[in-house]
Amino acid sequence: MLNTRRNSSRSLCWSSQATAPTGRPGSSFPARPAARRPGGGTHPLTQAADNARLFEYEQRVKSAFDAIVPVLKKVSALQHEEEFEQRAQMMAREQLGFELPEHILADAWVEQLDMKRLFAWCVFETYRRFCDDFFSADPLSEPEKQSFQTFLQDCGFHTLDISPCADGRLAHVIHYVLRLPYRAVRRKSYAGAMFDIEDSLAKWTETELLRFREGRPNTADAPTRYLKAVVYHFSSVDPNHEGCAAHGSDTGRAARAGLERLQAFQQAVQNSFCCGASIDLLLIGLDTDTDAIRVHVPDAQGEIDLDDYLDARELYDVTRTLPAQQAETRIAEHVQRSAPGAPEGMLRLITYLLRNNFSQIDYVHHYHGEHYDDIGHAERFIGAGIGFEEVQLRNLTYFAYLDTVEEAAQDLDVGVKIFTRLNISHGLPIPVVVRYDYHGHVPGARDRAIAHCERVANALTTRYDGIAARGLLHTLLVVRDCHSGGRIEVLGSSLSEQLQEAH
Amino acid sequence: MLNTRRNSSRSLCWSSQATAPTGRPGSSFPARPAARRPGGGTHPLTQAADNARLFEYEQRVKSAFDAIVPVLKKVSALQHEEEFEQRAQMMAREQLGFELPEHILADAWVEQLDMKRLFAWCVFETYRRFCDDFFSADPLSEPEKQSFQTFLQDCGFHTLDISPCADGRLAHVIHYVLRLPYRAVRRKSYAGAMFDIEDSLAKWTETELLRFREGRPNTADAPTRYLKAVVYHFSSVDPNHEGCAAHGSDTGRAARAGLERLQAFQQAVQNSFCCGASIDLLLIGLDTDTDAIRVHVPDAQGEIDLDDYLDARELYDVTRTLPAQQAETRIAEHVQRSAPGAPEGMLRLITYLLRNNFSQIDYVHHYHGEHYDDIGHAERFIGAGIGFEEVQLRNLTYFAYLDTVEEAAQDLDVGVKIFTRLNISHGLPIPVVVRYDYHGHVPGARDRAIAHCERVANALTTRYDGIAARGLLHTLLVVRDCHSGGRIEVLGSSLSEQLQEAH
Repeated sequence: MLNTRRNSSRSLCWSSQATAPTGRPGSSFPARPAARRPGGGTHPLTQAADNARLFEYEQRVKSAFDAIVPVLKKVSALQHEEEFEQRAQMMAREQLGFELPEHILADAWVEQLDMKRLFAWCVFETYRRFCDDFFSADPLSEPEKQSFQTFLQDCGFHTLDISPCADGRLAHVIHYVLRLPYRAVRRKSYAGAMFDIEDSLAKWTETELLRFREGRPNTADAPTRYLKAVVYHFSSVDPNHEGCAAHGSDTGRAARAGLERLQAFQQAVQNSFCCGASIDLLLIGLDTDTDAIRVHVPDAQGEIDLDDYLDARELYDVTRTLPAQQAETRIAEHVQRSAPGAPEGMLRLITYLLRNNFSQIDYVHHYHGEHYDDIGHAERFIGAGIGFEEVQLRNLTYFAYLDTVEEAAQDLDVGVKIFTRLNISHGLPIPVVVRYDYHGHVPGARDRAIAHCERVANALTTRYDGIAARGLLHTLLVVRDCHSGGRIEVLGSSLSEQLQEAH
Repeated sequence: MLNTRRNSSRSLCWSSQATAPTGRPGSSFPARPAARRPGGGTHPLTQAADNARLFEYEQRVKSAFDAIVPVLKKVSALQHEEEFEQRAQMMAREQLGFELPEHILADAWVEQLDMKRLFAWCVFETYRRFCDDFFSADPLSEPEKQSFQTFLQDCGFHTLDISPCADGRLAHVIHYVLRLPYRAVRRKSYAGAMFDIEDSLAKWTETELLRFREGRPNTADAPTRYLKAVVYHFSSVDPNHEGCAAHGSDTGRAARAGLERLQAFQQAVQNSFCCGASIDLLLIGLDTDTDAIRVHVPDAQGEIDLDDYLDARELYDVTRTLPAQQAETRIAEHVQRSAPGAPEGMLRLITYLLRNNFSQIDYVHHYHGEHYDDIGHAERFIGAGIGFEEVQLRNLTYFAYLDTVEEAAQDLDVGVKIFTRLNISHGLPIPVVVRYDYHGHVPGARDRAIAHCERVANALTTRYDGIAARGLLHTLLVVRDCHSGGRIEVLGSSLSEQLQEAH
């Protein structure tokens, strides 16, 4: 289980490269075989086998993306040599697992290879293969989904709806940081975790109607509530620069803004519906350098104190030498003590989240050391739209949940700013995947998803016309029938023919 | 009750002009005192007193808007004369009921009066006064709102949700054409009546939840359904040019598109929820020249036939000589015969709508003759956003129900095209009221409505930057607490200081 940058021996249906790439420029994901091994041992509650499986998966996916630049560099160096096309394709096949679009290569002799287009094409193709793997091989299979739902209801909640920040360093918060089955949790990401209240209210309404009409996930008379959580974030290593951009790297501001948004949503539910309609709230902070969480345990009245939280890292330390069972009891005691009289179910859920987080603390510690090397942004692409359940990995995607560019302009501006530094400053374009999932059993839903994709892609190109015109913004248009659970459907891209040729 | 262009003697809290204006350039609203009186008499079912009251109100509102251009023409002619400002203000006070912004007048001597700004300012001020009158004096008071809701439920429907075309010639469809209490009907207008299915689905969900949770408007076990209606339109006088622009003035296409959208919504409900969830559908056509409707009566299975409809004008003619009671029975017989075995409640509602429409047929006939003079567009401003319940008048407002400019671009483009002909071709700007209603009892709702207004106004200016930069597009920003039922709140406008000065 030692750190390694080499791909595992598992057969890769979508990525057959065998070499360790050195990452794109600007990427701070560790590209060297990690030599260090921090002070040994793990917490007794850590699920070491899960960590190994999750790390293998993360490495496999990120290596595929990070192989692109090194391969393209070599291809570029070859472009005026003899038998260039054959040699380039052989290299791409071997190291990327797919061939490059022929006519881009074929035109190289005229002037030179269009590396910007080639790069975007490779990112999109890698994304497609990553998705196909995810939806066909189910690499993050979740046998515990059903048992988690039962547990959640036992704790008094029929829905867990989490809004993390859109920052790519939080994209793994559900499956990795909190170790929750991603299919059992609603995740909608917004810059600064500033989720849309009307959108959440519509989801609450739909959820409650399903309980009344169809008894899903439980009947309306069950004494459970809708739990809305916000995950804000901060950086323990470089708090003034690597915190939340949307809140000026000010941890206090990020937490306060998250709490205010939660309270506004709660009040919106209470005021829009009568008869005691309400929701429960949870505020969680994430140190994106170590993946340790802090939980602001709500008190007996459900009130959340910004200055009062339990730090998973501290609990980890004080329970590390205990046997597993005792450690778990100790966590529960700390949680209870922090909020006397609070509902038992909420305390149990928080204990569960803290305990789960210990595995992730060890994950980072074991594979990365004191903290991640890439404490800053290192996303590989922007994901804009609705869907993206396959994105459960840290720093892979800057994710903006959006209906329109107009409403999400702030989220997108933050993303484009990040990628200006990551990609454009190195001459590489920003790859944006525009994605809309739809329910295939609803007639016309696919057509509407396609129209939605096209409208948003056009709006993106209009908003960022300066960089788009210079070939520095490319969009891939994708829809997916989330009802059938099948693969994604690629509609096309701003690279047009090149992409279609490949399929 | 003879046609008259003079204002009634009713005291006008918001419009004190006493002269008959001659309309703005391009306006085809009859500007002359109507001399004709078409073949006498009305239908025995016509509510003549309602017609008189409705006509007085329509005249009063439209006269206020139509007074602007004639007054500004005179003001323009005076601008280099002695005591210009005093004389202009006197004229404005007398004929418009308000004073003009002083500093625009004061600057006239330098070059010349900025008539574009002055025109937009007057339209916005007139709109504000029109709204204040509406929300304080309740000129369309609806004592029958409650009885209509009872009737609707007796017919088997707990909600009536109507999507007309955004065309201003349909803005009066609820209160005038169908004689329904506007507060008891949901109206959302879209170009070509192409309503948003997701938006309607959210409304359906909310409606059903309120029935389950709060028994509003009735409990969920009552055997009633949600009725969604589309109103498409056509022109009997000039069918190839004055029909629905969004469907190329093709009546068949407009009807078919409306039906398809209705069916897609029904299927979306059926497929998104189980346990027999569904809705009922109704397709209505409107002749915008005469205000006569046609109703495509759904058959016993709820199926709608595009080629099979009842024409109110024909029913009017065949029942005109009968006593009222017999006429009503005769309509009901026709409706029943057109759809044997159809649910009795649906037939009763359709009979009611057709009978109501007779009053409007007589309204047009009596005050305008065979058809309206302004069979084409003659809207006074564009209304964009959510709200506008005060707009119940024909050809006053091109109305686009919208969350974002991005999603509603097509609707807005149609509106801007219409106003390019109506206003810009005469050198006058397009006045756009951006409006968001909010529920004042929900904390933060007002702030969000204000932010929404500002975002949409900015997006409008961006989308139409060419005309905006030339001073040919002006926006007024308005919010309203629809929960308290109070007046509108003007936030500001693209005319900035001028507007604020006035208040």
